[in-house]
Amino acid sequence: MNILDWNTLDPVRQAAALERPKLLRDAKLLAEVERIVRRVRKDGDAALLAYAKRFDGATPAALAVSEAEFRAAEKAVAPDIKRALKDAIGRIRRWHKAGMAKGFSVATAPGVDCGRIIRPIQRVGLYVPAGSAPLPSTVLMLGVPAKLAGCGDIVLCSPAQADGGIDPVILVAARLCGITQVFKTGGAQAITAMAFGTASIPRCDKLFGPGNRYVATAKQYVQGLPGGPAIDMPAGPSEVLVIADRDTDAEFAAADLLAQAEHGPDSQVLCLSDDAGKLADIIVAVRRQTARLPRAAILRKSLRHARFIRTASIAEALALSNRYAPEHLILAVRKAEALLPQVQAAGSVFLGPWASESLGDYCSGTNHTLPTNGAARAYSGVSVASFQLQISTQRVSRAGLRAIGPCAETLARCERLDAHAQAVRLRLDAA
Amino acid sequence: MNILDWNTLDPVRQAAALERPKLLRDAKLLAEVERIVRRVRKDGDAALLAYAKRFDGATPAALAVSEAEFRAAEKAVAPDIKRALKDAIGRIRRWHKAGMAKGFSVATAPGVDCGRIIRPIQRVGLYVPAGSAPLPSTVLMLGVPAKLAGCGDIVLCSPAQADGGIDPVILVAARLCGITQVFKTGGAQAITAMAFGTASIPRCDKLFGPGNRYVATAKQYVQGLPGGPAIDMPAGPSEVLVIADRDTDAEFAAADLLAQAEHGPDSQVLCLSDDAGKLADIIVAVRRQTARLPRAAILRKSLRHARFIRTASIAEALALSNRYAPEHLILAVRKAEALLPQVQAAGSVFLGPWASESLGDYCSGTNHTLPTNGAARAYSGVSVASFQLQISTQRVSRAGLRAIGPCAETLARCERLDAHAQAVRLRLDAA
Repeated sequence: MNILDWNTLDPVRQAAALERPKLLRDAKLLAEVERIVRRVRKDGDAALLAYAKRFDGATPAALAVSEAEFRAAEKAVAPDIKRALKDAIGRIRRWHKAGMAKGFSVATAPGVDCGRIIRPIQRVGLYVPAGSAPLPSTVLMLGVPAKLAGCGDIVLCSPAQADGGIDPVILVAARLCGITQVFKTGGAQAITAMAFGTASIPRCDKLFGPGNRYVATAKQYVQGLPGGPAIDMPAGPSEVLVIADRDTDAEFAAADLLAQAEHGPDSQVLCLSDDAGKLADIIVAVRRQTARLPRAAILRKSLRHARFIRTASIAEALALSNRYAPEHLILAVRKAEALLPQVQAAGSVFLGPWASESLGDYCSGTNHTLPTNGAARAYSGVSVASFQLQISTQRVSRAGLRAIGPCAETLARCERLDAHAQAVRLRLDAA
Repeated sequence: MNILDWNTLDPVRQAAALERPKLLRDAKLLAEVERIVRRVRKDGDAALLAYAKRFDGATPAALAVSEAEFRAAEKAVAPDIKRALKDAIGRIRRWHKAGMAKGFSVATAPGVDCGRIIRPIQRVGLYVPAGSAPLPSTVLMLGVPAKLAGCGDIVLCSPAQADGGIDPVILVAARLCGITQVFKTGGAQAITAMAFGTASIPRCDKLFGPGNRYVATAKQYVQGLPGGPAIDMPAGPSEVLVIADRDTDAEFAAADLLAQAEHGPDSQVLCLSDDAGKLADIIVAVRRQTARLPRAAILRKSLRHARFIRTASIAEALALSNRYAPEHLILAVRKAEALLPQVQAAGSVFLGPWASESLGDYCSGTNHTLPTNGAARAYSGVSVASFQLQISTQRVSRAGLRAIGPCAETLARCERLDAHAQAVRLRLDAA
């Protein structure tokens, strides 16, 4: 954790300073995923159960979570967690609802009304990983917008635990979101099942959710197969970029960097400032706080990718941020609001000292499923629109045809598409 | 061109009736595309020029279209075509502008304001094919929304013709859209150039546009590479589904089917009706009109994939349409408006006898870049949003932190993400 002085670096070192850790996605991984996809498409549920045993050490009695299991989960989860889930759902719903797209119709010429109608994607598949701990927040971040979108069929897959069940918090969160089709399967096998269907698991039109490199690779792979589903976005390790100035609270900034770093050994954190002293303070705080945290082993690994960069100005820091396009951007500076207009590419922006990134992960209301690994240059986070279709419409009267038909005919002839021209000409002759 | 009676088919034949023609995307094609991608990434402009010679029989003096070429194009294009392009741009702009997403901010709790800001994708790449004829409509359908989105850098690639130039109509259309960076390169090589950059062609964040199977395969392939760009959507052959009743004008319906069929030998057209007599009339009209059209050879090939299906009712026809999820859906029935609420999946819908599908291709105002091959179940057509980022924001005051911090801390502890919890706890202790 050294401080790099941006303006003393040559362009090669500058590029290296903003480079992400290499993803561990090699040919061997892809071959393994291909094998799993083939087997699940061939053997269906039997393959899912075999993989549950092999990868998760689990032998669930059935793939589908039963009503009895949902009821047992309700009893098992502490009231304060239930309350927190409900509170979070309320705010997540408020933000997502406010951002929903609406249908419209506009006259583009007399007698020509063009519009858009919004429809839910019919069947969506949500993936919820289960590693060392349950991730109910993933359920909320996918389940709430899916419901608001009006999706009729919501399928959720999560790996079975060693006891053959799914963590009760996941089940309670699913029910609170109105999701009842929950299946005990994980990894590339769950992705394949939702992509192409099995006897138990219905085939889904679009897949959502985070996961390890098997899951991420499988999502990208099935998306490219003939008849494969759409996916929310490409997935990479989580990352944060903090912009600090001399007013930044070093302890807060360090805590935000560590919150990101604890996701996994390949997570990346960057801290940019025009104040070298502040960067030094933040590094000291990171070291001190790390020692107190239980995931110190992961932290030490991911902090190897950390970057502390001194820039000539806050404007330069923001320019670098736009170039890096971070998943999370924390403007921990005194005049955060004044910087926002300059933000060009990021997943989500946090303004000012109190806006901890953790709040966005759980319950400020925004979605935490965000583009990583530079994808924030071209992708946006999950929203209700991610679960919807926008279908264009055109209503054309006889007068409308007369108004715009000749234009269409001219352009069709220019493209030498005579049948296109004729479809208009026949009508013009009859109109 | 026989009439299938839906309710006399067994489920296997029903599924076959709604199946699309197999795409010709084999391992050989992918290997060839991979070779092109590798070579362009290695040799840059030199590779582009070599491929122009080999695939397009062209030896352009430079890859970039010069100011002199733009000026010559202005003189070469007939005034009526220029006028049609301008008219079309006006309507395309009106519809796209009406559908633009807006930023917003909403208080999800006292002191917690969550919002969304809209930003253009910084650099976008548009691909315009050049086969037997220029396709200026593609330029408009991508250029107009890119400009409305505010994209600063718009790159356009199109294959060089045998004379080393680009069709003047393409250049005029590009200028009318405000696009000045036009390059003479096509196929998988153009896609690679825009995806990763060469000395002449800047690297783009997202690629748009139709193309042959090399282009479609290359887009999907570069999207999956590390650091690869986003793409608009997967591409397949064009298709239309017409729903007809006894009031449908058979000549109009036939003309619309043929307009779709002329795109290429793998295009697919379907016509569904509850009236067997009307289906027979439409088939007769298709045969008669085909004989008069210059692209009869292509038409005869693509009409092999045509389907004429008699359903028990118009409601059943619509249910089949939702299952098929056509790129274009023509409701050529008397009560088209009443059917619209039942439309669940389609790219674009045309209502009533005068709404020829060709109008949408050129100048009704809607976008003609639409999901094909069943992708309309999960993807939407191109719009201004396709060229923009939606970035979420959160502003949290001290009071806001006090209001929602405990909720975030509870959920972070439940997920055993202690650094997440600590980033909130530190602030709660200070607030």
